[in-house]
Amino acid sequence: MKNNFRILVTGGDMRQVYCAGKLSSLYDTYVMGFSAEAVPEKMNLKSAVTDTDGFYDFAVLPVPPLDNNRMIPAPFSSEKINPKEIRRLLKPDGIIFVGKYDPKLQEFFGDMEIVDYMGREDLSLKNAVPTAEGAVEIALNELPVTLNGLKVLIVGLGRIGTALAEILKGFGADVTASVRNAKGSAKARILGIKSICTNKMDTDYSLVFNTVPEMIFDNRLLEKFSDDTLFIDLASKPGGIDFESATLLGKKVIWALGIPGKTAPVTSGEFIAETVAGIIEERGFFND
Amino acid sequence: MKNNFRILVTGGDMRQVYCAGKLSSLYDTYVMGFSAEAVPEKMNLKSAVTDTDGFYDFAVLPVPPLDNNRMIPAPFSSEKINPKEIRRLLKPDGIIFVGKYDPKLQEFFGDMEIVDYMGREDLSLKNAVPTAEGAVEIALNELPVTLNGLKVLIVGLGRIGTALAEILKGFGADVTASVRNAKGSAKARILGIKSICTNKMDTDYSLVFNTVPEMIFDNRLLEKFSDDTLFIDLASKPGGIDFESATLLGKKVIWALGIPGKTAPVTSGEFIAETVAGIIEERGFFND
Amino acid sequence: MKNNFRILVTGGDMRQVYCAGKLSSLYDTYVMGFSAEAVPEKMNLKSAVTDTDGFYDFAVLPVPPLDNNRMIPAPFSSEKINPKEIRRLLKPDGIIFVGKYDPKLQEFFGDMEIVDYMGREDLSLKNAVPTAEGAVEIALNELPVTLNGLKVLIVGLGRIGTALAEILKGFGADVTASVRNAKGSAKARILGIKSICTNKMDTDYSLVFNTVPEMIFDNRLLEKFSDDTLFIDLASKPGGIDFESATLLGKKVIWALGIPGKTAPVTSGEFIAETVAGIIEERGFFND
Amino acid sequence: MKNNFRILVTGGDMRQVYCAGKLSSLYDTYVMGFSAEAVPEKMNLKSAVTDTDGFYDFAVLPVPPLDNNRMIPAPFSSEKINPKEIRRLLKPDGIIFVGKYDPKLQEFFGDMEIVDYMGREDLSLKNAVPTAEGAVEIALNELPVTLNGLKVLIVGLGRIGTALAEILKGFGADVTASVRNAKGSAKARILGIKSICTNKMDTDYSLVFNTVPEMIFDNRLLEKFSDDTLFIDLASKPGGIDFESATLLGKKVIWALGIPGKTAPVTSGEFIAETVAGIIEERGFFND
Repeated sequence: MKNNFRILVTGGDMRQVYCAGKLSSLYDTYVMGFSAEAVPEKMNLKSAVTDTDGFYDFAVLPVPPLDNNRMIPAPFSSEKINPKEIRRLLKPDGIIFVGKYDPKLQEFFGDMEIVDYMGREDLSLKNAVPTAEGAVEIALNELPVTLNGLKVLIVGLGRIGTALAEILKGFGADVTASVRNAKGSAKARILGIKSICTNKMDTDYSLVFNTVPEMIFDNRLLEKFSDDTLFIDLASKPGGIDFESATLLGKKVIWALGIPGKTAPVTSGEFIAETVAGIIEERGFFND
Repeated sequence: MKNNFRILVTGGDMRQVYCAGKLSSLYDTYVMGFSAEAVPEKMNLKSAVTDTDGFYDFAVLPVPPLDNNRMIPAPFSSEKINPKEIRRLLKPDGIIFVGKYDPKLQEFFGDMEIVDYMGREDLSLKNAVPTAEGAVEIALNELPVTLNGLKVLIVGLGRIGTALAEILKGFGADVTASVRNAKGSAKARILGIKSICTNKMDTDYSLVFNTVPEMIFDNRLLEKFSDDTLFIDLASKPGGIDFESATLLGKKVIWALGIPGKTAPVTSGEFIAETVAGIIEERGFFND
Repeated sequence: MKNNFRILVTGGDMRQVYCAGKLSSLYDTYVMGFSAEAVPEKMNLKSAVTDTDGFYDFAVLPVPPLDNNRMIPAPFSSEKINPKEIRRLLKPDGIIFVGKYDPKLQEFFGDMEIVDYMGREDLSLKNAVPTAEGAVEIALNELPVTLNGLKVLIVGLGRIGTALAEILKGFGADVTASVRNAKGSAKARILGIKSICTNKMDTDYSLVFNTVPEMIFDNRLLEKFSDDTLFIDLASKPGGIDFESATLLGKKVIWALGIPGKTAPVTSGEFIAETVAGIIEERGFFND
Repeated sequence: MKNNFRILVTGGDMRQVYCAGKLSSLYDTYVMGFSAEAVPEKMNLKSAVTDTDGFYDFAVLPVPPLDNNRMIPAPFSSEKINPKEIRRLLKPDGIIFVGKYDPKLQEFFGDMEIVDYMGREDLSLKNAVPTAEGAVEIALNELPVTLNGLKVLIVGLGRIGTALAEILKGFGADVTASVRNAKGSAKARILGIKSICTNKMDTDYSLVFNTVPEMIFDNRLLEKFSDDTLFIDLASKPGGIDFESATLLGKKVIWALGIPGKTAPVTSGEFIAETVAGIIEERGFFND
């Protein structure tokens, strides 16, 4: 049932390796930008064929696809990858899958279709779970107390906030969600947790997860929290916590970077593969 | 802190009584369309003043606001209420709150603002919980087996499906959600339950909750289920189950009507009050 | 793989029918004391053979095994069953399984082994789930509010209290356990719920489940609860609530009788069958 | 309301510091065996008074109370503590609280009452939660996949197994308990998880927590598991996994030492304090 498509997975962190592993059950898959030691032997991944122009139907670039030098980052290899090389190896009507769109990609792939898999809602939803698990892992590592019985605040009840709520309930934490309006508090009710209004936030919490990418925890608000409170910010930049104030005030804040790539590379790599395969299928790229 | 607004709650089922009870802590509240016995004494509700035209700022009509004879239904009173009477008692710039918009309302209140509280997303979200609880109540009453360990299918993971999933997990049921796409299965993952694709539904379930208002369970699909399977349809009309086929096939189907009005009249009445109060506040109807 | 044992299931409520259904997959099973209409046709149960003395290896009597007239209760039949008749039909070395030991059984079966399946700890543990589900069913039926957010007290964290806690957490109820000592509060912590000391019970609860068979809710304590509080007593007689005081005080109390036989006859009948089969296996009654 | 008792908390890991912190709200509490830097300043703990014989009513020794040289371990101090010194500082009718009884204690305190707080069932029950949280922390740190959807086996459903089940359900893991008998499977049912019989264990699990202190995972059984399976052994020595075989077979096994002392020192230190205070109260050591 395997397709005849050739797909090149190139650069990035371990997610890309597991992404390639999952894709290899569907397509003829090759990897580039990983030293032999980085790839688990039993995965049996094929090294990229680089001597034939226009060899590949698709390329999967990492998150992010380009570094500051306009090269494809390849931390598990001794050399970086030049996007021009990838352009050469792709068929003219190929597709480039990238983990966050960067306008500089146009320079190399301007005539081809570029698809941002990280922008897909299905992937965002899927990543909520490994992101929440990674955040809880951080909390467990940092805290000298149990989550059980702990007063925890989750700011925002979107997908990550919901995933956090589910996990924390299992720990028997005393969970409150900070929400903006009646819809938010109704969502909290469905999840069986308490809610407060973000505007009228009380501050008696030992652990705070922020998931909202807006400045909420400014100097005035941070001051009201105990110095023992641990803040974990999961919102994409610029995040929701004023880091300068937090530092001056001596608050414990962790900006959770690299979740879920670091904490669950297998799961999140496979999610990328599923999303890429879903897009290929949607586009009607079926074999004859 | 009470407002000076006068609000008239008129007709409907017991939800309206509890709605009035809740509103009475915020506004000067009166009820019409309930016999003395229907109203719990300690609620201390005031009977409507009807001798002064333009006495009330707001009126709250029930779900639905009009019956087939264009009267306001009042099952807990010996007489129905004529909407003309309500029109007379309201101030010219008053607002009519109704539990589902009906074009016939124009005839009586055409020059005034009519607000459908049932159409508000916050109320829909809030009602998810009493609706799900009512559905589980039905399942417990009907089934001669425990929910614990039971194979249960929830069709749709919107607000009601989500609320059902939370409750059923607590029972230790073996819960699967039937979803349309990758986003749906990602939602199931966040909730910690399994999912299948609605198009490729397997049928080995003892209990099925449908929450999707589209024809899903047609003759072909129903046939594949065991005769012991209990179907509970929570979707608004026309629902998602072909009742004619179901009847011919001898399937056990319950069209869950009157949830949550019947199963949790206090909670759902208070939700209506909260929504009405929220709308009044939004409109800037504050006292001077 | 079926054994050659002949087993006679006699009298009792619908649990006995489903017990027989389950046993019939293991043994040559016969029923007595059920009219044809009471037994679902597709179960295909065999009516008792009564013309041969010493025909059966085992008999399963219901819960309870004898009524006040020393007959085996058979509410689904027009006639009661005389234990003498059962004695005649059993082999001399047969076993009588009964649902609660009654000394009067000696009169009929004094020379034979009588085993009380209801006294077995595995069955008590199993019955915790249908009992808790039945109790929650009662609460849902009685209460005009949602369990979500409701202040619920569970008195005792034994097997039934634990099963209740699991279910109620799923509903998003605000659950507190009333326990006797530090061990009890540690159990509550494991389950992720709050606890209070039974001696210092506060009374601000809307729903109380009692599982402890000792007088806890006497006049003094009952007085402190709101008249709206619903009490559900699950403790075996004499229960933990002073009914006389409760009645005089106008408290809402439900003595939950017939759980799980009425609310989940299939599940609890099958549990009895599993326990009886387990005992037969333990005793080494294997076929040659 | 503070007692007049003088209590000396001596040596051990950070749990002892937090134990002392909690005790200091009840008794006149002193610490010995901690450098100034080890003790958080704001805890305001008093250094031991050592110039008066018979000064203290009680002493709390750590877990374990003695090292191989018969000294009280004090890893947060530059010097170890001689038990003779403690004997000198205690009143003749004082009590020694120790974290695991060691017969060598007789040599120093033979004429006094020695109480093993770790042997108390209430403390064991309380420690189940931090132990389970610590075990899950290890799993999150080690696994490159999410717990969500993961096939997890918990061997044993005692207090730690139960605490693990609660947490893992929240993660949406696919949890099975391995139990010995019908009682165990009934417990699993109450917790809403699946169960298998330990004798007939299947081996298709990605994560295994052992809580049973008996050799279960011998060479034969280990062989059947995938090399990717992570085993976390929580049973006290000698544990339930044959480590030699596991090493030879290349299995991933973690013997979880130091839980909960390392992962949750505050919580587990406070639990020790609560237990010690509970014992003091039980013994009737009340002030006049």
